[in-house]
Amino acid sequence: MSGLTHFDEKGNAVMVDVTDKPVTDRMAAACGSIRVSREVFEAIKNGTAKKGDVLGTARIAGIMAAKKTWDIIPLCHPLPLTKVTIDFTLEEETLSVEAVCTARLSGRTGVEMEALTGVSAALLTIYDMCKAMDRGMEIEKIHLLEKAGGKSGHYLRPSPF
Amino acid sequence: MSGLTHFDEKGNAVMVDVTDKPVTDRMAAACGSIRVSREVFEAIKNGTAKKGDVLGTARIAGIMAAKKTWDIIPLCHPLPLTKVTIDFTLEEETLSVEAVCTARLSGRTGVEMEALTGVSAALLTIYDMCKAMDRGMEIEKIHLLEKAGGKSGHYLRPSPF
Amino acid sequence: MSGLTHFDEKGNAVMVDVTDKPVTDRMAAACGSIRVSREVFEAIKNGTAKKGDVLGTARIAGIMAAKKTWDIIPLCHPLPLTKVTIDFTLEEETLSVEAVCTARLSGRTGVEMEALTGVSAALLTIYDMCKAMDRGMEIEKIHLLEKAGGKSGHYLRPSPF
Amino acid sequence: MSGLTHFDEKGNAVMVDVTDKPVTDRMAAACGSIRVSREVFEAIKNGTAKKGDVLGTARIAGIMAAKKTWDIIPLCHPLPLTKVTIDFTLEEETLSVEAVCTARLSGRTGVEMEALTGVSAALLTIYDMCKAMDRGMEIEKIHLLEKAGGKSGHYLRPSPF
Amino acid sequence: MSGLTHFDEKGNAVMVDVTDKPVTDRMAAACGSIRVSREVFEAIKNGTAKKGDVLGTARIAGIMAAKKTWDIIPLCHPLPLTKVTIDFTLEEETLSVEAVCTARLSGRTGVEMEALTGVSAALLTIYDMCKAMDRGMEIEKIHLLEKAGGKSGHYLRPSPF
Amino acid sequence: MSGLTHFDEKGNAVMVDVTDKPVTDRMAAACGSIRVSREVFEAIKNGTAKKGDVLGTARIAGIMAAKKTWDIIPLCHPLPLTKVTIDFTLEEETLSVEAVCTARLSGRTGVEMEALTGVSAALLTIYDMCKAMDRGMEIEKIHLLEKAGGKSGHYLRPSPF
Repeated sequence: MSGLTHFDEKGNAVMVDVTDKPVTDRMAAACGSIRVSREVFEAIKNGTAKKGDVLGTARIAGIMAAKKTWDIIPLCHPLPLTKVTIDFTLEEETLSVEAVCTARLSGRTGVEMEALTGVSAALLTIYDMCKAMDRGMEIEKIHLLEKAGGKSGHYLRPSPF
Repeated sequence: MSGLTHFDEKGNAVMVDVTDKPVTDRMAAACGSIRVSREVFEAIKNGTAKKGDVLGTARIAGIMAAKKTWDIIPLCHPLPLTKVTIDFTLEEETLSVEAVCTARLSGRTGVEMEALTGVSAALLTIYDMCKAMDRGMEIEKIHLLEKAGGKSGHYLRPSPF
Repeated sequence: MSGLTHFDEKGNAVMVDVTDKPVTDRMAAACGSIRVSREVFEAIKNGTAKKGDVLGTARIAGIMAAKKTWDIIPLCHPLPLTKVTIDFTLEEETLSVEAVCTARLSGRTGVEMEALTGVSAALLTIYDMCKAMDRGMEIEKIHLLEKAGGKSGHYLRPSPF
Repeated sequence: MSGLTHFDEKGNAVMVDVTDKPVTDRMAAACGSIRVSREVFEAIKNGTAKKGDVLGTARIAGIMAAKKTWDIIPLCHPLPLTKVTIDFTLEEETLSVEAVCTARLSGRTGVEMEALTGVSAALLTIYDMCKAMDRGMEIEKIHLLEKAGGKSGHYLRPSPF
Repeated sequence: MSGLTHFDEKGNAVMVDVTDKPVTDRMAAACGSIRVSREVFEAIKNGTAKKGDVLGTARIAGIMAAKKTWDIIPLCHPLPLTKVTIDFTLEEETLSVEAVCTARLSGRTGVEMEALTGVSAALLTIYDMCKAMDRGMEIEKIHLLEKAGGKSGHYLRPSPF
Repeated sequence: MSGLTHFDEKGNAVMVDVTDKPVTDRMAAACGSIRVSREVFEAIKNGTAKKGDVLGTARIAGIMAAKKTWDIIPLCHPLPLTKVTIDFTLEEETLSVEAVCTARLSGRTGVEMEALTGVSAALLTIYDMCKAMDRGMEIEKIHLLEKAGGKSGHYLRPSPF
């Protein structure tokens, strides 16, 4: 089963052997959004500027989760990440908050799962902190933006247009 | 800031005091999807039936992540969950896999974050196991389906129609 | 060895049996301080109000560490805490930041270690975030303030005067 | 905000990018103390020699906590430490136990937080194991002793005299 | 598939629903052994009495691992254990060390996996600490000794004679 | 105490200093077995082929536990493993399941504890999933098979014949 690299020839799950891959600088960026009610949107927007800092807490959650991706995703390698950042954009027209997570590593395998896990934890934390106001929020559009540094080359998500 | 219960009156983040809330039976169900390429879809579908069991691994990931929600989402209470299940549906027409996570607890606070975290980890694991075939997969539509057992009453997500 | 309850009669470490103790409401509060340079003090004070929120990050660290006290302190019982808060006071005259952690539980054993661990992690996080400015900071005065709810009765630390 | 390296130019918390820093041998040593009652002091002193080994348990706690510093302090990098030791000194004249933690790493960033976290966990464990005898113990004087191996050069804490 | 309770009717792994089971006092005891060389046996025996305390470290490892059984064994419930002890017996005639782990809980499901996991971690720690002397050590005879408190009644392992 | 490398000259436990050891490719393989009843054996055998996949779940458990060996065994170094696999063999004549765990690393210290911990967690998971059918299962014969890549040279367990 060519494409499913997380299985051996008998179909059993494995943590893929990357021992012989070269150490290179690697980076990945992923993003995702949460769609919220008008009331929640205003609370987040105001909270950021003044008090009740939803995004500050979500940022810490995303960074901490990225570091333990290997403990959440079964076949991910444990990786000593050298950088993690989380950035948020408030999108007024769609009443949504977009999160972007960027991760870096000097190592033998890519960090895209770390970026995706960081985004997911940040968005889940926003949900958690605002759920008393709105239970209908939806997390959406979690995907890889960019990936560089491995044998498979530079990946840049095609623009939707 | 009335709606944001995770902050005290000064705007500081807190793990909300639920000591005085009654112990009741609580449940929550959440779902979400991952949209994949035709090639990935077939690999998952065949793998499930025969070998290379992507969904079996994703199910374990979701169950284990639900148990440590409190260690991923900063202000969640540590909860001794009494049930976690993850179910998948393959949706051929949209080339997507839907995950549903159901959690239960006899306790003082709800388990919706546990259900949402279980769904997220299961979908991320599918991404991880199939990413060598397709880096353009997208995780979407993560939301609460149902919640029962707390003071705020029974929540059932309104049908989209 | 009467006083050392964490050992059995042969002197071996044990996680004390609390199965037969009654479930009661328990709380504990602990505090501690970090003494910093004038430059760090100003950076924290301004950061809190405007940007670079040292204390917001330290608060999250303290809450999350309190939840996993049982995984840090070998003989502590795993406890499903029902409340954790961290509060900071900036003390201009001594150039120090004081942290107070309050924890609650409806359970069979006390939560003083959770309060003390929350304080310690919060202060260590302040150190981490400011260490590029000053490596001579000192963490001090970590102690229990109050404890209520167990068989040993109400403990209130005697005033130093 | 020059000194606060854990924030980006917008004031948001980040896990600092160390990808481009050279791999060098790094070490750090930190210390701290716990002041106890005469009764506790004697119990620890005798326990060490004969049975009821408080310090042996505290040493293991400190070593294990140093290894997971990155999971306790939000913006610390995950680091594959190559050495951790904890040493204790009983100081009869002040009725206190001093802990020193030394950590080493061949890597891209320093290990002072690991040394400080190891000391803190060791001292908290002493508190835990002796708290049935004395709730008034105080943890104090946690600070960095020495740090070597990074760009910022050798740091040796100035003598108090 | 009647006997395999960790699967639903479709054969999918689940964390079994125990929400409706009564809270009762539960205990379990498990044991296991490690067979070592004469040289290792003597080192452990002398170490216990004087210094180089292999068994003290292994005891802490077993207690801490029992507490996180739910994070090691995928379908185990998270349980707030109320007691964990580890006891060792040195068996000169077979050159082996036997470990017994006893766990208790007031809860809705049994603690036999916690007792078995505690034993396993304690024996692995002995292996780790002595492996420089002998790589041929073997861990054996890990089994349940006793279990009480659930619907399935009292289990006492039949004597081998 | 020559052979016990996990203690310093005073007999205190340490995480051994490996900073100055060279980075080399290292591998280790370990195995172990669980003896089960005829009924359990058939359930596992059929489950593997069709549904109720005991071994698939146990494989994930073993891989994930190997990654956190450093968090289970107190004096193990945290290691960014580059490969983990778990393989099972059903042995009809002895009614047992044998697990083999292979781990690799490019690093400064060996990975035998990771292989042994992976085996132990996999076997414990089999016990967990089948315990409703048979509480008399026994885990046995956990030992190192092979180890390569360090200063101590290639170790291959002598054949029993």
